[in-house]
Amino acid sequence: MLILGLDPSLSSTGWGVIRSEGARISHIANGQIKTDAGAPMAARLAAIQSGIAAVIAEHRPARAAAEEIFVNKNPQSTLKLAQARGCVLAACGAAGIAVNEHAARLVKKAVTGTGAAEKQQVAAMIKVLLPGVAVAGSDAADALAVAIADAHLAPKF
Amino acid sequence: MLILGLDPSLSSTGWGVIRSEGARISHIANGQIKTDAGAPMAARLAAIQSGIAAVIAEHRPARAAAEEIFVNKNPQSTLKLAQARGCVLAACGAAGIAVNEHAARLVKKAVTGTGAAEKQQVAAMIKVLLPGVAVAGSDAADALAVAIADAHLAPKF
Repeated sequence: MLILGLDPSLSSTGWGVIRSEGARISHIANGQIKTDAGAPMAARLAAIQSGIAAVIAEHRPARAAAEEIFVNKNPQSTLKLAQARGCVLAACGAAGIAVNEHAARLVKKAVTGTGAAEKQQVAAMIKVLLPGVAVAGSDAADALAVAIADAHLAPKF
Repeated sequence: MLILGLDPSLSSTGWGVIRSEGARISHIANGQIKTDAGAPMAARLAAIQSGIAAVIAEHRPARAAAEEIFVNKNPQSTLKLAQARGCVLAACGAAGIAVNEHAARLVKKAVTGTGAAEKQQVAAMIKVLLPGVAVAGSDAADALAVAIADAHLAPKF
């Protein structure tokens, strides 16, 4: 079963596809959808959505997963993130793919063993769990982490 | 020139199309896209996006307008709204339509003469400004208000 992990953001949305078979996971593909900060918001959001739609069309994952969202210290950043996230979820919904949502703490714990792991620690564990994989960047690493966590946290879907 | 006014929300997204010619405005169409509260978030967001895409395909507005968004007292509601709004903006972006954003206060002022108008006052003025029009509901009325405000506030686009 293929799982699509998603790490939405307005400037750079990470995605990662893994195969989950029993307790085994393997890497299929990963990438980042970057948008032009000078472009209108509507065009940037459309680019994110069409980018994820293209990933889904190519890999046909059985399900997707993303971290839960919350309002953080910077409300304006959170609103931008939420708008981008909405487009990413809509791309999944349009393709009939369910999106599991996991708390960031549980994703970190599933990948590193601790819910308090730093971002670098998560990235390092991705290299251990998916040896030899070229990861497009930190957003793609985070997306792969969500996919791996989903394989562990929601195996019965 | 046709202007598409948008009032996004997860449960009921209002839309309204008006024609703006010089100082004259006239009604073209309005409606509300309602989503099933029991459906998965991704499916609801996809429905909002495809609904707005269908409105754009039918009416081919020259531009769109929406109220600015901010984090209010209920962060969870704001996040849902922002996700829905992202999908609405992406539908415009995918069609190559620019979306003007206006402060809620300016929209109210443009329609009623005061930035402190109540929701009912805005709805009542929509009936005055667009006489005889059947408005689908309060969300469609708000969308028409944004479109009318945009005709006044951004005539040079």
